[in-house]
Amino acid sequence: MTIADRWLLPDGMEEVLPPQARQIEELRRELLDLFHSWGYDLVFPPPAEYLESLLTGSGNDLDLQTFKVTDQMTGRMMGIAADITPQVARMDAHSMKRQGAARFCYCANVLRTKAGSMLGSRSPMQLGAELFGHEGLESDSEILGLMISALIAAGAGKIYLDMGHVGIYRALIREAHLSSDQEKTLFDAILHKAYGEIDQIVARDIANESVRGMISRLARLNGGADILAQAQIELADAPASVKEALTSLEQTANVIKNQYPNVEINFDLAELRGYNYHTGMVFAAYIPGYSHAVAQGGRYDETGKVFGRARPATGFSADLKILAKLLQKNDPVSGVYAPAGYSDDQELLSTIRALRSEGTRVVSGLPDQNVSALEMGCDSELVLKDDGQWVVEPINRIF
Amino acid sequence: MTIADRWLLPDGMEEVLPPQARQIEELRRELLDLFHSWGYDLVFPPPAEYLESLLTGSGNDLDLQTFKVTDQMTGRMMGIAADITPQVARMDAHSMKRQGAARFCYCANVLRTKAGSMLGSRSPMQLGAELFGHEGLESDSEILGLMISALIAAGAGKIYLDMGHVGIYRALIREAHLSSDQEKTLFDAILHKAYGEIDQIVARDIANESVRGMISRLARLNGGADILAQAQIELADAPASVKEALTSLEQTANVIKNQYPNVEINFDLAELRGYNYHTGMVFAAYIPGYSHAVAQGGRYDETGKVFGRARPATGFSADLKILAKLLQKNDPVSGVYAPAGYSDDQELLSTIRALRSEGTRVVSGLPDQNVSALEMGCDSELVLKDDGQWVVEPINRIF
Repeated sequence: MTIADRWLLPDGMEEVLPPQARQIEELRRELLDLFHSWGYDLVFPPPAEYLESLLTGSGNDLDLQTFKVTDQMTGRMMGIAADITPQVARMDAHSMKRQGAARFCYCANVLRTKAGSMLGSRSPMQLGAELFGHEGLESDSEILGLMISALIAAGAGKIYLDMGHVGIYRALIREAHLSSDQEKTLFDAILHKAYGEIDQIVARDIANESVRGMISRLARLNGGADILAQAQIELADAPASVKEALTSLEQTANVIKNQYPNVEINFDLAELRGYNYHTGMVFAAYIPGYSHAVAQGGRYDETGKVFGRARPATGFSADLKILAKLLQKNDPVSGVYAPAGYSDDQELLSTIRALRSEGTRVVSGLPDQNVSALEMGCDSELVLKDDGQWVVEPINRIF
Repeated sequence: MTIADRWLLPDGMEEVLPPQARQIEELRRELLDLFHSWGYDLVFPPPAEYLESLLTGSGNDLDLQTFKVTDQMTGRMMGIAADITPQVARMDAHSMKRQGAARFCYCANVLRTKAGSMLGSRSPMQLGAELFGHEGLESDSEILGLMISALIAAGAGKIYLDMGHVGIYRALIREAHLSSDQEKTLFDAILHKAYGEIDQIVARDIANESVRGMISRLARLNGGADILAQAQIELADAPASVKEALTSLEQTANVIKNQYPNVEINFDLAELRGYNYHTGMVFAAYIPGYSHAVAQGGRYDETGKVFGRARPATGFSADLKILAKLLQKNDPVSGVYAPAGYSDDQELLSTIRALRSEGTRVVSGLPDQNVSALEMGCDSELVLKDDGQWVVEPINRIF
């Protein structure tokens, strides 16, 4: 193996170097502090768990995304966490067992066998917040509000919010009486918004004409505020739960519009992302210049059930590395250079200690180094004056 | 599988719940800021890499500690990081390629197949700092000083510092002309300080009487400041490099004694921890009431070689979770409870927003919850006054 091969990183397993790493760290702190100020308690989930607790109830997608290893202490299979949300649901259901509402936030590395998109990451820093124990307008709008506040705190200007509700499709498909193969074919077509294909499938597989028409129209219900009114008309024959879903979408959107008037809201009633997992409202946030969602989430009321405690739940997550890349400014590194060769000088040592305790970055020079203070990210230096005092002076960049 | 089995975590794969998680986070920030103030630049290594770059030059121990997975994109084997130091060495040698001294710090989860001790962790949060590109007193004492400063910042009172130098044993064993099997047997005996066994092995396997005596005496050279003077006498016939190692230990210890007079220094010249990996001074820090080292490190000058760039290197690391457990105080959570049922009240919403923007934790009440504000970690609440203003009032714990 050549030396070049040896240091090559696997695709999508990124390292983060200075100064980007420090920028990510600053953003991490800012967002975790924001979550804290909303009453969301930080948790650190374990980086690996037994497969049963990682994957139960989460569907096939997460299974295929999860790296598996054998626990040589027990012989059981463990998975490396590929998504933090099910872990936090387990922590809520079993470890915490709080009565009433419980709010948690986290920031942790996850590993995935495959990237979500070409050139995408297989090692996101997943940052998110989850609210358990309440179902309804207040918790849906709190989580949405927190996600938007986080994006604003991270520096987002214009935010586009996509909202949907998987309960609508779920109710209609129940009326369609399809085999599971047929259902899967239709699901894929709707997921990819392949309208021609959708119309063919419903015409061929769905006997009930009203349901057939509603599913075909649902796939096209995508747009601004008027879409909800249009849906109330076009899905008038649907079960009552569809009407309720549309009403709750409208109410939640109104709360958000009221609190964040600059956010542009779009409704996509055939949005089926995370369909296996979600049970109610789903949403995703976009910013100009980036074609994927920068944050997403939704309601998933059933996840805790397998751990003995089904709880209403909603939450959102984002990749901190992507947020930092898209939104953070480049702060120049600064610092004070302390010259080498004075390690016995108590005056210098105590000056350095005082500067550092104020948070100033002081880089000690080392003997026999052929590097300038500027190259070490210093814009000033400690200079010895005639009276034996050390003072900080700016480094003149001209010489 | 029963529900109880499903949530059981694998041994040594811990989750961290509130409020401990927030305490760990505070300590993480404090220590990373300390490293930053000493000019150590934060890096985030990838959580998984190809095995060759993770393991080359690091010896058999790390190999057995590393979970392996197949990269299904390439068919190559990857390892989940079990130690951050070799990753940072690779980043220094290849990714950064800085001239002269380079300083890096990190805090990252690692995963290990087996715990280092009974009931030990298999998922430490490894926190550390590495200094590349300089060999000598200045960098050795800088890294030691940073480690001690970190422990003091974390709240350590008394610190016991163990210092050794693997170069001493290495020089003597070269003179002993042992087969690799014999060398391994002797190594294990010295590692476990099995004095009787050591004397038997050297008497049987080492022909040169002077070397035999020096190795036997070396195993017992363990104690306070006078040990170095005693070693200069007892190892007088050793190669010159042994004398140099003793001198550099003494000089480094003097710098540390001078800067941190409260630190108690102990010398253990047969300390062989990390022998495959280390090349010079090694050290470990202990605090009262905990039998394992809370932080450790040493010099490892050859690691970068396999990546095409051998660089002098020294560094230290610690498990942040252990530091937080041993050293942090319990800060009570506080916060303001905002009552449910006023989500249209603009006055309340703007009061909440103002409090949160100052960093105050405000927990919004949700309808139909049977939980008190105290149970949600709030010690005060927002109360609506007759004039329509919302004010923060302490919650009376008596009622």
